Amino acid sequence: MIPVSPDIENKVKASFASQSMMTSIGAEIKSIQPGNVIITAPILEGFRQQQNFAHGGLIFTLGDSAAGYAALSVMPLETEVMTVELKINLMAPALASPNGFLMAQGKVLKPGRRLIVVASQVWCDDQNGNRVQVAALLGTMIPVNQ
Amino acid sequence: MIPVSPDIENKVKASFASQSMMTSIGAEIKSIQPGNVIITAPILEGFRQQQNFAHGGLIFTLGDSAAGYAALSVMPLETEVMTVELKINLMAPALASPNGFLMAQGKVLKPGRRLIVVASQVWCDDQNGNRVQVAALLGTMIPVNQ
Amino acid sequence: MIPVSPDIENKVKASFASQSMMTSIGAEIKSIQPGNVIITAPILEGFRQQQNFAHGGLIFTLGDSAAGYAALSVMPLETEVMTVELKINLMAPALASPNGFLMAQGKVLKPGRRLIVVASQVWCDDQNGNRVQVAALLGTMIPVNQ
Amino acid sequence: MIPVSPDIENKVKASFASQSMMTSIGAEIKSIQPGNVIITAPILEGFRQQQNFAHGGLIFTLGDSAAGYAALSVMPLETEVMTVELKINLMAPALASPNGFLMAQGKVLKPGRRLIVVASQVWCDDQNGNRVQVAALLGTMIPVNQ
Repeated sequence: MIPVSPDIENKVKASFASQSMMTSIGAEIKSIQPGNVIITAPILEGFRQQQNFAHGGLIFTLGDSAAGYAALSVMPLETEVMTVELKINLMAPALASPNGFLMAQGKVLKPGRRLIVVASQVWCDDQNGNRVQVAALLGTMIPVNQ
Repeated sequence: MIPVSPDIENKVKASFASQSMMTSIGAEIKSIQPGNVIITAPILEGFRQQQNFAHGGLIFTLGDSAAGYAALSVMPLETEVMTVELKINLMAPALASPNGFLMAQGKVLKPGRRLIVVASQVWCDDQNGNRVQVAALLGTMIPVNQ
Repeated sequence: MIPVSPDIENKVKASFASQSMMTSIGAEIKSIQPGNVIITAPILEGFRQQQNFAHGGLIFTLGDSAAGYAALSVMPLETEVMTVELKINLMAPALASPNGFLMAQGKVLKPGRRLIVVASQVWCDDQNGNRVQVAALLGTMIPVNQ
Repeated sequence: MIPVSPDIENKVKASFASQSMMTSIGAEIKSIQPGNVIITAPILEGFRQQQNFAHGGLIFTLGDSAAGYAALSVMPLETEVMTVELKINLMAPALASPNGFLMAQGKVLKPGRRLIVVASQVWCDDQNGNRVQVAALLGTMIPVNQ
């Protein structure tokens, strides 16, 4: 496991803490490595679709955030990133179960000065510890200087 | 303005009401025409990113839902739809302002027995009544029989 | 019909002429308006898939080129564009028929200094003059200074 | 290395041979494993863009074909597949050099009765043996019974 610098770790955590949507969905950052970030979240009652599965918007939000923070982890300290575009393939329903949760891993496929190509995978762990991949994402982030 | 049948309208509204995420984000269905659905939502405090703009996950959720209900509006009564995949291009930030809100219009580009090709556009109206397109989406829905 | 300046028209046509793939597939530019370009091509024998339909790669190539030239048509004279990413939904097969041809219309959805959001639609005209939409594309172009 | 059955191998090779576009671009199947297919092609003079790089349409065509044949390799013998939709991120230009060539690896991420989620990576090998990833693709294939 390759660590990021304490400055980068603090920057990622501060950005995450300032996104109110991360708090609303109960998300937590589990791992920050260079170009590789893992975020988890429960499937709260307020974020489901009509069949009691995790809403696609929740799954997208986690995949987007994991990818965005993976990109942020390889940027200079003064640079933020924004999502340019992102495509999600939903592969299996994420059934809301007690103790079940979602896990998103974002990765940088290609860092760049002008754009960063990213991918994410999202899994659902049910209460029996079975893990199912529920989504794959592929997209583009852009560096933004403050 | 072409109306849908009362049965379809009731089905779309019942499905919408049963999605807890729609309630959490404060979304409302504004218009249901065949293959064309409009949903609006405020930019609630709990659904923002680090710069106080609407979170990309919120914008995606609205675009996904508008597209999904547009698809549902052209399906037989006993059929539901699920999102297969969806791509979003974020075109401008959606600044959270008092009385500002998001509007998503979903459209069916190509109905089909096996798959439905859909698109959405999402706009942000600020408090001065200025409307800016914040996202374009293109994707695929699949009919699911209950 | 809004014309582009003669300089832009010449630039687009010169770029098109210098893409050997456009010549190989027999493509022609039919219309250049600001942010809106139409390209046509036959379905030559060498660009089909196993069922004698137009190959998806041919349809993508036309949609990509129409979108790219639409973006180029709104750029300053010294600027070129490259495709960052592009998503295609194939909506119907494009049957190769005598006198049949493909038509792609690319449009700029959102011009920008750093990125240009684009969309394309591709149709197939059969020998009886029936027109079917075979694809929709959504993507991103980037300006490149020479 | 896991082999596919001789029947599947023959089916994939026969389908490949019947796609005239594969012949036109000089493509060859290099490896067929279950859910994992590798295709290579030179960057022929007729398939370039205005800067003498491989045309994006050529790169897409290879990525699409590798993904499609990866899907086909896990289908029953009587089933074909078609591309529903596919998104490509172009990561680096593919410079046409003597002895240089493109290599596309398609993989099945999620097989299914109704849809198959696929991904591809495309690399460019230059004449010095340096390998650069030029594209990542993510998309959906659909089984079609003859």
